[in-house]
Amino acid sequence: MEQNKELHLKFMQEALKEAAKAKERGEIPVGAVVVIDGKIVARAHNLTETLNDPTAHAEMQAITSATNAFGGKYLTDATVYVTLEPCAMCAAALAWSQVKTLVYGASDNKRGFTRFSPSLLHPKTEVTSGVMEEEAALIVKEFFKNIRER
Amino acid sequence: MEQNKELHLKFMQEALKEAAKAKERGEIPVGAVVVIDGKIVARAHNLTETLNDPTAHAEMQAITSATNAFGGKYLTDATVYVTLEPCAMCAAALAWSQVKTLVYGASDNKRGFTRFSPSLLHPKTEVTSGVMEEEAALIVKEFFKNIRER
Repeated sequence: MEQNKELHLKFMQEALKEAAKAKERGEIPVGAVVVIDGKIVARAHNLTETLNDPTAHAEMQAITSATNAFGGKYLTDATVYVTLEPCAMCAAALAWSQVKTLVYGASDNKRGFTRFSPSLLHPKTEVTSGVMEEEAALIVKEFFKNIRER
Repeated sequence: MEQNKELHLKFMQEALKEAAKAKERGEIPVGAVVVIDGKIVARAHNLTETLNDPTAHAEMQAITSATNAFGGKYLTDATVYVTLEPCAMCAAALAWSQVKTLVYGASDNKRGFTRFSPSLLHPKTEVTSGVMEEEAALIVKEFFKNIRER
């Protein structure tokens, strides 16, 4: 359990680095990494503005990238780390990918999938939330504060 | 209303052509077209096997393609025609795109978004269902029948 906690911190920090990259591009700062056998196999951040694509959330890019890398449709051995609670689209995408574990940082009380239904995820997916919650929430909060002050 | 019905039939036939293309590729046969001002601006079909990507549903490809074409994130003037009821992922993606109208053919009692929550769509999106329902259901039913008989 303690070992898991350390791993979660390590990989959430990597997801936060991705969120910082999104912020630099003027994107809502959300980042994700996909981990299989203790190694990062995909890194991604939100690119909705850059790509003019409302589906280009960090998780979607990460799933596409990881499945491309492995040439298979499923992520049954993977843990997806994402800084913010996935929205319904991303949760359902994670369900299609049959991801083994989802670890997220901050909750999203407006758009998070748990607002709709926790069953949007695959029934076998294990979920851990609140990892580096404060950091993950802060980067989003500051982003929107800066937008409002412009 | 009658005019709408004619248009719906016309464009659903185009979505069914896309579904037929998916079938030829060995993909679950679902097709979609995006229409703005009476013109098709994007056509797409399910490519999850071809791309090894569980997010590559017809609607996702169609949204990405249409928003790319217009250089904007939103589809507030668009009607999306899809042969099968969108899953939760696609419904939430359509919500992010703020699509004006969704027209679908057959219902999907196993994976359709209405199983989870009709509110996965954007509150302003108008929905019409059951257009060419039998054709849209038949192509999927036959696809799975053929798989089972292999």
